[in-house]
Amino acid sequence: MTKLSKNELTTLTQSAFVALGLSPEDAREVAYVLVMAELFGLTTHGVSRVESYGERLRVKGINPTPNITVETCAPSLFKVDGDNAVGPLVGMKCLNVAMLAAKAQGVAVVLARNSNHFGPISPYSLLAAEQGFATIIGSNATTTIAPWGGSDARLGNSPLGFGVPNPKGQPFLLDMAMSVVARAKIRNAFKSGQSIPDTWATDAKGVPTTSPKDALDGFLLPIGGHKGYGLALWVDMLAGLLSGAAYLTHVKSWLDEPDLPQNLGHFFILINTQLLGNSEWLAQRMHDFAAILHDSEAADPQKPVIVPGEIELNKMQDYLQNGIPIDDDLLLLLQNYSKGHFPK
Amino acid sequence: MTKLSKNELTTLTQSAFVALGLSPEDAREVAYVLVMAELFGLTTHGVSRVESYGERLRVKGINPTPNITVETCAPSLFKVDGDNAVGPLVGMKCLNVAMLAAKAQGVAVVLARNSNHFGPISPYSLLAAEQGFATIIGSNATTTIAPWGGSDARLGNSPLGFGVPNPKGQPFLLDMAMSVVARAKIRNAFKSGQSIPDTWATDAKGVPTTSPKDALDGFLLPIGGHKGYGLALWVDMLAGLLSGAAYLTHVKSWLDEPDLPQNLGHFFILINTQLLGNSEWLAQRMHDFAAILHDSEAADPQKPVIVPGEIELNKMQDYLQNGIPIDDDLLLLLQNYSKGHFPK
Repeated sequence: MTKLSKNELTTLTQSAFVALGLSPEDAREVAYVLVMAELFGLTTHGVSRVESYGERLRVKGINPTPNITVETCAPSLFKVDGDNAVGPLVGMKCLNVAMLAAKAQGVAVVLARNSNHFGPISPYSLLAAEQGFATIIGSNATTTIAPWGGSDARLGNSPLGFGVPNPKGQPFLLDMAMSVVARAKIRNAFKSGQSIPDTWATDAKGVPTTSPKDALDGFLLPIGGHKGYGLALWVDMLAGLLSGAAYLTHVKSWLDEPDLPQNLGHFFILINTQLLGNSEWLAQRMHDFAAILHDSEAADPQKPVIVPGEIELNKMQDYLQNGIPIDDDLLLLLQNYSKGHFPK
Repeated sequence: MTKLSKNELTTLTQSAFVALGLSPEDAREVAYVLVMAELFGLTTHGVSRVESYGERLRVKGINPTPNITVETCAPSLFKVDGDNAVGPLVGMKCLNVAMLAAKAQGVAVVLARNSNHFGPISPYSLLAAEQGFATIIGSNATTTIAPWGGSDARLGNSPLGFGVPNPKGQPFLLDMAMSVVARAKIRNAFKSGQSIPDTWATDAKGVPTTSPKDALDGFLLPIGGHKGYGLALWVDMLAGLLSGAAYLTHVKSWLDEPDLPQNLGHFFILINTQLLGNSEWLAQRMHDFAAILHDSEAADPQKPVIVPGEIELNKMQDYLQNGIPIDDDLLLLLQNYSKGHFPK
């Protein structure tokens, strides 16, 4: 592990994307989002993505020099065509369009098509919260979940995130996918020879299973059964169906077809909380809200009650002060990419 | 069971609310929402609510002659003061304000305070969908869920609903609460002497339990653990914290303090889909979306894959044609209320 400052890691990541064909400005924007993911401790969605994004950039499955365009449908409603850009570039464009419109209009909705994996949602939510905007942000994704009661993968484990600003403290940040657990957790159970709860996944025929091996051949189960299924569908309807992007099985696989555009879609819904009351009012309510939750005695004294976002924001504080730990293999990869030395 | 036409049931329910002190116009609006709940088969949120709403109306815990006011914060953002009206009256007001604004602005957000239980969400979503609006609608509720890892009830089982219009077929309608199961399901398990999965509820100390008896003394668990906890908090932040309503433990109990205003809050987010593409385009995509899901072979041949809303909308078709079945006790209650004969 090596600890890098935010600036060091951003510059290094930017260089990698410049070497992959992006303009310095675009590369900076993408690096910004991925480094924020690292600051939150979301390493699976952080700078390690240089590798997978890079793989597609090199075979032109992602467009390194896009012309992202914005269509104004109404004063508060916008469509963005990502021109198959790197996802975080489209995400940042959507966020900026939405913030500008919501400032005056009170609310803005931006729907994006022709995009790619846009990183985790919390970075966007935090940037918006810092400017006083509450957010609902979502994206569709490659299919990994079967319809509730179905027997093959037809919908994605769509990420959905929320933010609420706090003028004098930590904002509320929630960033979740729709499956009960990530696939990695099932792989870990398999490796350690343990069984899994039958609420995590189904076998290849769509039947809930306690065998991690069968689960790895099957499909992730959504939270709350039919409820999470419905939620995941709704995210895809906004992010994919209404945006003009691909949806459900129309989303091309990231792995199988690296040279074909995925045509992913995202949505950004922003609400200007500064028009609802002054910052004293909001800060007092946010403080009280968190205090009520923290005040509930923990069932396990080792695990106090938290408000979503606390873990990530505390980690960010730590990393900004003490540096961001980066795995040495990953650091080497970034250094190689930044010099234009890519794997075969 | 007696079968009533939609008109018969609406008129009877309207009469009951007029007898409880509402104006004929307001009573009609409330009846309209509760009868739609019956049409969807959501009997727990239907005309049986005349009894509980009536109980509070009679002790002035709900205001029968409210002056609901609307504040325009920005062209797309509104605050509604419900003046402690019957919830569905506030809900319909919010919906109408939102539809009017979203028609021109593309999007509208309405946040309501000083309200009460506003019925199920699907009626609002359907009315909006019929006019071309996609919806996200939520409300907070009396506390029944402990914070994730906590040990006492500090948040409500907040309902959250979504709708997406379909110009040539059934809209998408999702209406869910945040608990894995409703309390009634745990009561049923207790009555039949069965154990329950440990994902449904905790005991009084916040520890997950398989005993329905201990669960009834404890708290409902949210879907996906910390995910559902976060979702329920977010609903309360929009519906309660940002709207200016009560939130978390500030929400007064419906049962313990029937004469005190609950100060519940709601939010309505509407997106005008007619500005995104023409109706042919949307109808084709909605048809294709549903077809992809229906086409997944059912794991259990008796339970084909469905799209959220199908069950309710099919029931509505049936009931509109063949009448709405109403339990005889409930019918008698409605008839008594409509004549001003209330229980002691």
